[in-house]
Amino acid sequence: MKEHPLECFLNPGSVAVVGASRKTGKGSFNLIEQMIKFGFKGKIYPINPSAREIMGLKACRQIDDIKDRVDLAVILIPRGQVPGAVESCARRGIRGAVIVPQGFADADETGKHLQKQLTLISRNTGIRLVGPNTLGVINAYSGFSTSFVPHKRQKVPVGVICQSGIFFVGSAVFTGMLGKGIDIGNGCDLDFADALEYFGNDHDIDVIFIHIEGMIRGRRFYEIAGRVARRKPIIALKAARSEEGAQAAMSHSGALVGRHEVFEAAFQQAGITTALDSQDVQDFTRALLHLGSMEGNRIGVVTLTGAGGILLIDALKQNGLQLAELSPHTIERVQALSPVWMSIRNPLDIWPALMKHGMDEVYRVALEGLLQDPGVDGVICLAIAPELPAQADLDATPVIGETAANHGRKPVVTWLYGPNQNIVSETLEASSPVLSFPSLDRAARALSVLYKRGRFLKTI
Amino acid sequence: MKEHPLECFLNPGSVAVVGASRKTGKGSFNLIEQMIKFGFKGKIYPINPSAREIMGLKACRQIDDIKDRVDLAVILIPRGQVPGAVESCARRGIRGAVIVPQGFADADETGKHLQKQLTLISRNTGIRLVGPNTLGVINAYSGFSTSFVPHKRQKVPVGVICQSGIFFVGSAVFTGMLGKGIDIGNGCDLDFADALEYFGNDHDIDVIFIHIEGMIRGRRFYEIAGRVARRKPIIALKAARSEEGAQAAMSHSGALVGRHEVFEAAFQQAGITTALDSQDVQDFTRALLHLGSMEGNRIGVVTLTGAGGILLIDALKQNGLQLAELSPHTIERVQALSPVWMSIRNPLDIWPALMKHGMDEVYRVALEGLLQDPGVDGVICLAIAPELPAQADLDATPVIGETAANHGRKPVVTWLYGPNQNIVSETLEASSPVLSFPSLDRAARALSVLYKRGRFLKTI
Repeated sequence: MKEHPLECFLNPGSVAVVGASRKTGKGSFNLIEQMIKFGFKGKIYPINPSAREIMGLKACRQIDDIKDRVDLAVILIPRGQVPGAVESCARRGIRGAVIVPQGFADADETGKHLQKQLTLISRNTGIRLVGPNTLGVINAYSGFSTSFVPHKRQKVPVGVICQSGIFFVGSAVFTGMLGKGIDIGNGCDLDFADALEYFGNDHDIDVIFIHIEGMIRGRRFYEIAGRVARRKPIIALKAARSEEGAQAAMSHSGALVGRHEVFEAAFQQAGITTALDSQDVQDFTRALLHLGSMEGNRIGVVTLTGAGGILLIDALKQNGLQLAELSPHTIERVQALSPVWMSIRNPLDIWPALMKHGMDEVYRVALEGLLQDPGVDGVICLAIAPELPAQADLDATPVIGETAANHGRKPVVTWLYGPNQNIVSETLEASSPVLSFPSLDRAARALSVLYKRGRFLKTI
Repeated sequence: MKEHPLECFLNPGSVAVVGASRKTGKGSFNLIEQMIKFGFKGKIYPINPSAREIMGLKACRQIDDIKDRVDLAVILIPRGQVPGAVESCARRGIRGAVIVPQGFADADETGKHLQKQLTLISRNTGIRLVGPNTLGVINAYSGFSTSFVPHKRQKVPVGVICQSGIFFVGSAVFTGMLGKGIDIGNGCDLDFADALEYFGNDHDIDVIFIHIEGMIRGRRFYEIAGRVARRKPIIALKAARSEEGAQAAMSHSGALVGRHEVFEAAFQQAGITTALDSQDVQDFTRALLHLGSMEGNRIGVVTLTGAGGILLIDALKQNGLQLAELSPHTIERVQALSPVWMSIRNPLDIWPALMKHGMDEVYRVALEGLLQDPGVDGVICLAIAPELPAQADLDATPVIGETAANHGRKPVVTWLYGPNQNIVSETLEASSPVLSFPSLDRAARALSVLYKRGRFLKTI
């Protein structure tokens, strides 16, 4: 099988850094320094006309002076010199180049012209290009990165495709994690479709997130997306939804921006999940990665308050989910623990019962009931995130985690309210298959994405 | 001036606890234990037919045995005994009672009948009631609470009015803070209007949050709200928006639930800010408390990435805000630091400039420009929340905080992306007038609420 053109970008054995800087440390954004810190063990060739050595590595005056075989070049010089440098790389047999600088189709007429030259050089010589206007690639698995901004290396099975370094730098806020990343920048050669195809065949990657401002070769992208989405979920954040945003996008990456509705319809048909903002991206990535999909949209609910149950019903409705009709058996088990005046239904309001029988016993019975009830596709648990250890008797998360782990495969998510949301959520997630969301609406929204994923998988 | 009927609930000198339990410690939810822990220094009279002492306090067998004057009773006995106990309290001259138990209009026909009895007893004897089905009140200023669930005492100027204890327990998730709270429960006597009137005249309280499932005496509420909203912001979360939610609400608190659109229109007319979920409540409370209001809807933006600027433009549009037209002076100051090929406009994309001149210098010039520009009403700053100290040179928040503090009164909010959002946000907020939001959409949504508040204040 022919090697994918992005392979030499994500897993190069040797790299030339064209325009390598001698300045290192604070504020220098030295790419070679970051590359070594991130864990790259291959050979690095700094190119700098006036340096003999950079970070202990022998520097060459120009690309042509490198004697060894080099897989990839990262180019950091002023825009006017870039086309010449790319031609030199192609001549030396280098297969790919990351063009980092800005000032091309994202800028003025001169920049647009320079970018067209790059496209032509790529077509004529066969050298493949990522960029310009890019941080390039990150591969936490092999320990390679072309980003001059420092990153934390995390081997997580999430592949990020974007048109801006903000998705590398902000990965904690967007996807919550980033195992491999391709910033296509202005996309003068390799583009969304290529990156999607690459991650589609990458066994390290289970979920793909794509940030799109505008797209040129749409047809090929949707063909590939339709195939990849059968194997792994794809989440897309389509930026530039408003008219003003679309105008700004044209000057940012120089791409044409289609109407949002057109994108959304095409996404749906290809099985791509649409995210509307950074919270969506984070929530959907976590849900699809850890919970997979949901068979139907009938939700069972355990709550400690009637008011919480009502807020949840609003959230379900808002997100195309429905309150499950519970089996008589499920109802009876909770009714038996509750006061006679209480009429048990979904949402299961267990506060009066637990005042008598204790949190653990009652929460276990209620959640087990929902997980065993054939009329329930997924469960949302409302519980308190108390001050610990002062309010430990209010903490239902250990019993929620244990019960969910013991009873199989329906997605269980929680909304934890109280003074300690972050810590109790993290502990629960680390020790069980349960995911916790910071609001009821976000919990319901995440389940709705699992439901749509389940529906899509049934059509193929 | 006549004392407000809620005064004896929020600031009692002495309290009888009817149905006080001898069980204390883990899982006991002992109300007297929590009351003392929360800081109550007044006299407590435990009432329990079979105890002589509870937590070192002399217990009485029945209410009539108390010899001293008592301001407030908290009632914790089975529902059938409640009307008799309330009559005894009235006879003893106790002015108010919190009815904690469930099982009234929130339950069956018997419960509905019992609740009607309570309303009649209150009318006939003059004793005022909060509840039933309530945690009662919290007053962190005086150190008094009737809640059997433990709480952290925080003197913050936020008053919470609700129909469920979830808003006390979950205050950290809903408002982010709670200085005083009134849980009206099923509202058999004192209701939303009374609680709103009380907090409206309370000098400790600057912002009021109300959770509403349904409402009986709407006219009086809106009259009071219209007056109070001129002095301090009111935020309302109307639950039971969906039809299914409305049905559940009827069985939860027994209240009639009106159509959501009717509420929303009435809220707007009265100057009440509508929140749609717990994130809204938290974001709006913080924004109104710390930033007050905004003169217009023209937003200036500083960004480190074009892509971030485009996401922000979508968020502004979505929330009824507009991108400010900047003065030539503001543009020129940033243009002077940027490459010639870059055409500076709002959002101010400063990355190319700071690669030359450093983060602090460039961010200061850009933000100062926006704060001094008469065409800008508020500012959103995008910045990185880096790993510290490893990525300290990427941290613009010190210069953002300092510049905002030095240049007056326009609201400045940030969205920080990167691996360290929580900690960098907290540090920034603790040391400056800037508020940080976890997503661009939430930052823009908070500013839109400040803009509406400013518009409302102009009409009065």
